[in-house]
Amino acid sequence: MNPDPLVFTRDLILPPPTPSDKTADVDRLLRVLEGLGFGDAQVPLFVAKELPEMLRRNNFAIRVVLSRAGNRTKVLGLGAGAVLGLAIDIGSTNIDCSLFDLESGKKIDEAGIVNPQVVFGSDVLTRAQLAMTGEDRLHDVLLNGINGLILDLCGRNQISRDEIFAVTVAGNTIMAHFFLGLDVRNIPLSPYIPVVNRPLFLSAGALGLAINSRAVVYVFPNAGSYVGGDIISGIICAGINREEEPVLFIDVGTNVEITLGFSDWIMVGAGAAGPALEGGVAAIGKKAEKGTISRVKIDRATGNVEIGVISGGEPEGICGSGMIDLVSELFSAGIIDQAGRFRASAPGTSERAGMKMFTLHSSEGKELAITEKEIDNFLLSKAAMFSFLYVFVKSVGLTFGEIRKVFVAGSLGCGIDPESAINIGMLPDIPRERFISLGNASLKGAEMVLMNADLLAEIEETAAKITYREMNEDAELMSILQGAMFIPHTEPGLLKA
Amino acid sequence: MNPDPLVFTRDLILPPPTPSDKTADVDRLLRVLEGLGFGDAQVPLFVAKELPEMLRRNNFAIRVVLSRAGNRTKVLGLGAGAVLGLAIDIGSTNIDCSLFDLESGKKIDEAGIVNPQVVFGSDVLTRAQLAMTGEDRLHDVLLNGINGLILDLCGRNQISRDEIFAVTVAGNTIMAHFFLGLDVRNIPLSPYIPVVNRPLFLSAGALGLAINSRAVVYVFPNAGSYVGGDIISGIICAGINREEEPVLFIDVGTNVEITLGFSDWIMVGAGAAGPALEGGVAAIGKKAEKGTISRVKIDRATGNVEIGVISGGEPEGICGSGMIDLVSELFSAGIIDQAGRFRASAPGTSERAGMKMFTLHSSEGKELAITEKEIDNFLLSKAAMFSFLYVFVKSVGLTFGEIRKVFVAGSLGCGIDPESAINIGMLPDIPRERFISLGNASLKGAEMVLMNADLLAEIEETAAKITYREMNEDAELMSILQGAMFIPHTEPGLLKA
Repeated sequence: MNPDPLVFTRDLILPPPTPSDKTADVDRLLRVLEGLGFGDAQVPLFVAKELPEMLRRNNFAIRVVLSRAGNRTKVLGLGAGAVLGLAIDIGSTNIDCSLFDLESGKKIDEAGIVNPQVVFGSDVLTRAQLAMTGEDRLHDVLLNGINGLILDLCGRNQISRDEIFAVTVAGNTIMAHFFLGLDVRNIPLSPYIPVVNRPLFLSAGALGLAINSRAVVYVFPNAGSYVGGDIISGIICAGINREEEPVLFIDVGTNVEITLGFSDWIMVGAGAAGPALEGGVAAIGKKAEKGTISRVKIDRATGNVEIGVISGGEPEGICGSGMIDLVSELFSAGIIDQAGRFRASAPGTSERAGMKMFTLHSSEGKELAITEKEIDNFLLSKAAMFSFLYVFVKSVGLTFGEIRKVFVAGSLGCGIDPESAINIGMLPDIPRERFISLGNASLKGAEMVLMNADLLAEIEETAAKITYREMNEDAELMSILQGAMFIPHTEPGLLKA
Repeated sequence: MNPDPLVFTRDLILPPPTPSDKTADVDRLLRVLEGLGFGDAQVPLFVAKELPEMLRRNNFAIRVVLSRAGNRTKVLGLGAGAVLGLAIDIGSTNIDCSLFDLESGKKIDEAGIVNPQVVFGSDVLTRAQLAMTGEDRLHDVLLNGINGLILDLCGRNQISRDEIFAVTVAGNTIMAHFFLGLDVRNIPLSPYIPVVNRPLFLSAGALGLAINSRAVVYVFPNAGSYVGGDIISGIICAGINREEEPVLFIDVGTNVEITLGFSDWIMVGAGAAGPALEGGVAAIGKKAEKGTISRVKIDRATGNVEIGVISGGEPEGICGSGMIDLVSELFSAGIIDQAGRFRASAPGTSERAGMKMFTLHSSEGKELAITEKEIDNFLLSKAAMFSFLYVFVKSVGLTFGEIRKVFVAGSLGCGIDPESAINIGMLPDIPRERFISLGNASLKGAEMVLMNADLLAEIEETAAKITYREMNEDAELMSILQGAMFIPHTEPGLLKA
């Protein structure tokens, strides 16, 4: 990829004025920019204010910061030092952010926080409904959270916020609206109308972002109330719009979002899967981060548990991919049955206060255990996910076997073991090499755009191509779902259908 | 003229959303605007914030305020009441302003103030030099003056400043720089480089103008340090760029600015003429306003003076056109000689404290008189003006007789009597019907653009066509000037040359 970042610099040497060339300073700069192919460049007033002195201080050599966002070249600044950019994924639960050097294209750092809006409700629709009742702090809380995250990144990397000249933002439709301070109140009500779907180019100053006030902020388009910029960013990350045959993209969060398509058409569906797959199902469930169990093996004979902990050390909980491994291993080792019930006297199980549970790990008086009830909740989520996949793929007349690639994204997507997921009937039983883990695809798509302005047109074309399908309304779904509550399914043939 | 104002409104009825048309609000508005030929329209964030509620309050009928300034359609506001515009001429001495209803094209009111920068010096170059020494109040003082003028206009017409959505600004290069807060320090120094010559479209908010912060502010381009937007505006007002044969345009202020040209080429020259022709020469000199003498007749036999006062009543001073009449009449009545000296015992003359003077008017103990010294100053100004005209016209190989039209503008231009001006040798002796008085042509040009966006392209073409000629450097000038100190000239034939 030839780097073509949203914001870039040019070191220019202008011919100094002479009695026979009295071109004004701004016009002189524009003349040189025109010669470089930026004939449409705009020079804002603040640049015109700074230009004369800077030109004369450096003998008419000057560094300009340029942006071509919005199909128009704009001078964002003069004589800048570093030119940095941020990619931000605003999730309902987590906000993740990467800091880039736009000149080298290198990632400097990344950081994340829990979305501070969670105090208003874990579900994004709950927050939109709160806004409908007059709650007006959701925008401010979100913006303050993001600004705090940015200032943290600046502080620990010893950079000035004024060096950040570009931001790309991907989030679901409601999160993008909250971020922009737009009215979300018509999104939860039929016919579910957002304020804006088109991509936006804004100035950081207008948004109140704690970066250079002239920075360009690109907000991914939505394809409707239920297909936000996060999904489109993920599609771009996976390159679905460039595929020649249908591929599947699964983003697992509080909602399961499924994308199916290729260069000709792209269909997106979403449905509630509960928090199970984000590690929220169990008391010991955690986000995939340092100190979290992401891998589980159980010895078939002894019932001994072997765990893999992210970054090693003493485990503090289990993430989504760990849960998938755990349930798969519990089933394969015969500790739970097809319905997810503990078999009598299975190794590692116990019953306390009337609750049946399995102890995954214990040391120094601390115990990580999972209850039967929690396994039930997990199975409901995995059932929802499989049922959505099945109904979705079938609805376009395809079979699982015809799907050449399955991208798995989301916080769980970083480390999912297809073998385990297929074993429990969460993912279809197709060749393992077709599964591709993307991690936070929404963030990665935002990073790609930051460094490649050519993608902007591709994003718009892709957004226009997407159709949305409401999956919870499908008639066949309930019967598939009921069988999918079992491991792997009451009709295992469906996994290969 | 088909009115095509810089800012205009459209009353739109959007099709309300339905389950089969879930287009977002902003996208829906853009779709309708595209159907009206505004496919490039931009919707700023603040409009996106207001749109959902306004649409639903009025059943998707909405009034939008649009601007096409800067070759791009922009939505400036929603649901506005009146849509008004201001044309402003920022002169070094006076600031004049007209208020228009952009929908009807009618002028609502006009007002003017003395440029508050005069406390820093009457000459614009003096002010630029002050800025070079670190004086930083010139922008603020000017802006405050203009804002006061606007608020006055709003108050006395009972309009809200938020109803003003468009402003056109014409001023000389230094005044435009002061208005914009740009660095003027390179203008007075060779090679005399302005910060910007191109036309600018700015938002009122960025400038700090006391009108709707989203209003479009158009600042006329300059054609160099010595050919400002005021001259270009005057050229547009006179239509010089559309003429098929050379015409002359004279703008008389503290400087004499002469434009000569037609559709093929336009040449501008300027030179210092002193304040004489703006009514600043005499103690009784005043701006042409209510209560000022603008016409003088002297009975050849009796020496009785008959005066014409603007709006009638008791006179308080004399303006430029009155001065021209006065000197012409004093000369024709034999009260002054060719050199401007009072003849011995001429009627109306007296000598007090060693100063010879002529009493123009006296009543109730108040006397308006002019001294010989003041007549001398006036003759220097008229000599400068004629000499510039002569040298200028001759330099392109033309004679006065070949000039088909002579536009006379400036505060004095409103009422100049060509007969008097020719009589004293200030204007060339050509057929009287070729003289056309324009008054404040710079303001009128600004008014025209406010109501006709088509002129924007014409202005840019015109600005590119202008060449500047420094007149004070002309070798022949001094000899012409010396003769022109006499009435009408020591070589009267030059008046027809």
